[in-house]
Amino acid sequence: MASDARYDELVALVREEALLSSVSATLEWDEDTAMPDAGVANRARQQALLAGLVHERATHPRRGELLEALAGVSLAPDEAINLRELRVQYDRDRKVPRSLAEALASEISLAAVAWSDARDRRDLAPFAPHLARIFELKRAEAQCLSSGDLYDALLDDHESGMSMRMLAPILDALARELPPLIDRARGARDRIDPAILRGDFPELAQRELCEWLAEAVGYDFAGGRLDGAIHPFTIGLGPGDCRITARWDETNLTEGIFTTLHEAGHALYEQGLDVDQWGLPCGMQVSDAIDESQSRLWENVVGRSPGFWRFLWPELGRRFPALASRDRDAYLRAVCRVEPSPIRARADELTYHLHILIRIEIERALLAGDLAIADLPAAWDERYRQLLGLTPRDVTEGCLQDGHWSAGLVGYFPTYTLGDVYAAALAGAAARELGELDDLFARGETAPLREWLRTRVHRVGCRLAAHELIEAAGQAPSADALLARLRARLDWLDAG
Amino acid sequence: MASDARYDELVALVREEALLSSVSATLEWDEDTAMPDAGVANRARQQALLAGLVHERATHPRRGELLEALAGVSLAPDEAINLRELRVQYDRDRKVPRSLAEALASEISLAAVAWSDARDRRDLAPFAPHLARIFELKRAEAQCLSSGDLYDALLDDHESGMSMRMLAPILDALARELPPLIDRARGARDRIDPAILRGDFPELAQRELCEWLAEAVGYDFAGGRLDGAIHPFTIGLGPGDCRITARWDETNLTEGIFTTLHEAGHALYEQGLDVDQWGLPCGMQVSDAIDESQSRLWENVVGRSPGFWRFLWPELGRRFPALASRDRDAYLRAVCRVEPSPIRARADELTYHLHILIRIEIERALLAGDLAIADLPAAWDERYRQLLGLTPRDVTEGCLQDGHWSAGLVGYFPTYTLGDVYAAALAGAAARELGELDDLFARGETAPLREWLRTRVHRVGCRLAAHELIEAAGQAPSADALLARLRARLDWLDAG
Repeated sequence: MASDARYDELVALVREEALLSSVSATLEWDEDTAMPDAGVANRARQQALLAGLVHERATHPRRGELLEALAGVSLAPDEAINLRELRVQYDRDRKVPRSLAEALASEISLAAVAWSDARDRRDLAPFAPHLARIFELKRAEAQCLSSGDLYDALLDDHESGMSMRMLAPILDALARELPPLIDRARGARDRIDPAILRGDFPELAQRELCEWLAEAVGYDFAGGRLDGAIHPFTIGLGPGDCRITARWDETNLTEGIFTTLHEAGHALYEQGLDVDQWGLPCGMQVSDAIDESQSRLWENVVGRSPGFWRFLWPELGRRFPALASRDRDAYLRAVCRVEPSPIRARADELTYHLHILIRIEIERALLAGDLAIADLPAAWDERYRQLLGLTPRDVTEGCLQDGHWSAGLVGYFPTYTLGDVYAAALAGAAARELGELDDLFARGETAPLREWLRTRVHRVGCRLAAHELIEAAGQAPSADALLARLRARLDWLDAG
Repeated sequence: MASDARYDELVALVREEALLSSVSATLEWDEDTAMPDAGVANRARQQALLAGLVHERATHPRRGELLEALAGVSLAPDEAINLRELRVQYDRDRKVPRSLAEALASEISLAAVAWSDARDRRDLAPFAPHLARIFELKRAEAQCLSSGDLYDALLDDHESGMSMRMLAPILDALARELPPLIDRARGARDRIDPAILRGDFPELAQRELCEWLAEAVGYDFAGGRLDGAIHPFTIGLGPGDCRITARWDETNLTEGIFTTLHEAGHALYEQGLDVDQWGLPCGMQVSDAIDESQSRLWENVVGRSPGFWRFLWPELGRRFPALASRDRDAYLRAVCRVEPSPIRARADELTYHLHILIRIEIERALLAGDLAIADLPAAWDERYRQLLGLTPRDVTEGCLQDGHWSAGLVGYFPTYTLGDVYAAALAGAAARELGELDDLFARGETAPLREWLRTRVHRVGCRLAAHELIEAAGQAPSADALLARLRARLDWLDAG
């Protein structure tokens, strides 16, 4: 079928917007890895200008005309899907005024540097006004997007169609089921000596290990690179350029290994997108939770499996001879040990979701104005004491521990838990088709799972909604598969 | 005097253009330091889009209207200067069609990766079609800019008001005077043992030395950073963000020291600009030759002076104890030794200008179509044999040795020689006011010279034209001061 000329014009408009967004992403990468602090004011102006240009293209009346004109036209299937999704995006983007988009982009640049400064000083104060402004702007954005619940409006922006009401059964199940499981894990915890993880692992050697590891799971360095970052992230800068970052601890390899696997999981999704559809819904990640399902699948399902460690262990021994005398199973048990910690990104698989429950609760309160920024550290500490039984040493272990809020990501945290739920469902479906995944991993065979994900998730783009993707893999989203996976992990720990 | 509202509107338009250009520069920095090769096609599209947006603002009819409307208006002195220079820029920019600006921006991105690939393979072939296309586009640009000599049109773009006719007395004097001086240098050359420069200098330690060195001459790291690059460069990404790069040779410190001093010299100019006038002519480098005068002043006048080495030597000894047993004067003589080499950027101060003479000749022939790309390596080798008495080992020592052409810099090379001419004039004027510079340098006092340059050059911006700046310092531009400086260097070498 010959494409409609109006469709082609629409695509050109959309791709120019995508190209400008990719410019903005390149600046963001630079901010997070290279920019000197004194450059932040100009960077904020650059980002605001780009946000305005993106907004102009996203909301251009010509786009609306083309969407209208194409509404009744018979298009190829992918074109029809793109049209449907672009309509949704257009209606969404028209609700947010350009000035707000510009103000948010500017504030996000300024806030990132303030966050980093506050971390250095271990004091919320330098970041507090920026955090207040971010929540103020996100509140304004939420009010533009929906007349309903403010938090739902932002959640929907990360996970189209999702609401706290729909999430409740999953979050409630985890809130109910996890504490007894964490209690049960105490026995294994006391038998495991985490000292086995400690040693002297120079950063350069770890970086090389992590490059090898990222390549081993299929990350393509011809179109990427791996750098260090305080709070690791993955960023796509357009076709052929998707970069990952990791964090290294010179006394413990696991920080580098698991941040790399997590970010490589995101990057495999990006690198697996349908490049012919670049910039269009069919060539885009369908949702943030599906994106997190990919990172958490490689981090947790692959990265913490005994099979994968049978493959990984000889390589670790070659690179770090001191490990040769240690016991692989004891090492992995220490890796998987369940123990509450103040840092979400370093949490074990079970307590992880308690962090998410707290974060959702706190950011909802901040957004609603029920919690003042000044009261944040105390509220944070109180909830951590109640749910995890610990108190952060200072704000770098507390409310400054990650850069989500400074990046304007409010309503994002639910996608981590949902990502784990989706990952468990996808892993189950993959195993039904590919056989026992652990056996594949033990032979270093990551390609079958990766190719399965390419077909079922990566190349699908927005052709299926997030829940449809999961249902197509044979499971309605629920906490069951995740809880089953976590119980199996405890069984394995108990057997050690 | 209250500013005219139309002037303010003009400034806003101009600053938006400058901001977009600074975005493009950020992408360029990323291309040269971080971008994976597979990202190049998308990067070329990003740069073409930005070039189009810059062009749109540079040539916007509203800008023309405002320039017209303000023509007879009484403005503050800086405003009047900005208006005058913006008029010139506008008339210039209107001559180049947007499509050509976009094509050039795209080709420059593609060419940089091809150049790097060709260097890796030591073969012109992968770069040849890009080089042909660059010269074709630059030819088209020159034809748009002027109906006169094509090379003059491009030279004028780097050095406003300059022409080959005006440059001729300087180039002719150097072509006449340098060969006998280079002959004269043979005696000293044979007495100097360059082996004194060799040793084992790990890159990390050199990087730290160069950070110290850049700071010692006044480069502000709060608004900058230092990275490695095959062909070092300085790039300003807007107020508070001016980055430098250097190249290290682990067997010889001089590569790192002199690339750092050269780039720090550029950066001091950028960091010394009048930030209140950012994006406007009064807050910009007046010309590329004045820019090069700053880099070559710090590289050659400061960096090769015996005084500066009295200050530098103890620091080198602390960082590289193997140097402690070497003789400082013998070391500096080896640094300043006059010996033809195929690489311009590593040339001594005398033979350097023979490289420039060859480059001007060759790029004029390429631009005029008198020399085909296919014949470039042979023509290159022949001229190097004739003028410098040597033959490059391969194209990485020949026509691929630097990235100027791949960056679209045709007609730029004259600014190096002119920069040295200006640097000699400025250094002479500074010495008349500040006293013997060498004595200051020996005490590590670089601030007086830097502050002198701040006042007389950096903060002046475009308030004075290049030749006016030099004349204001008391010297009409000629080769005399440079030749006098080079003769003094030979006297010093002969005295050793």
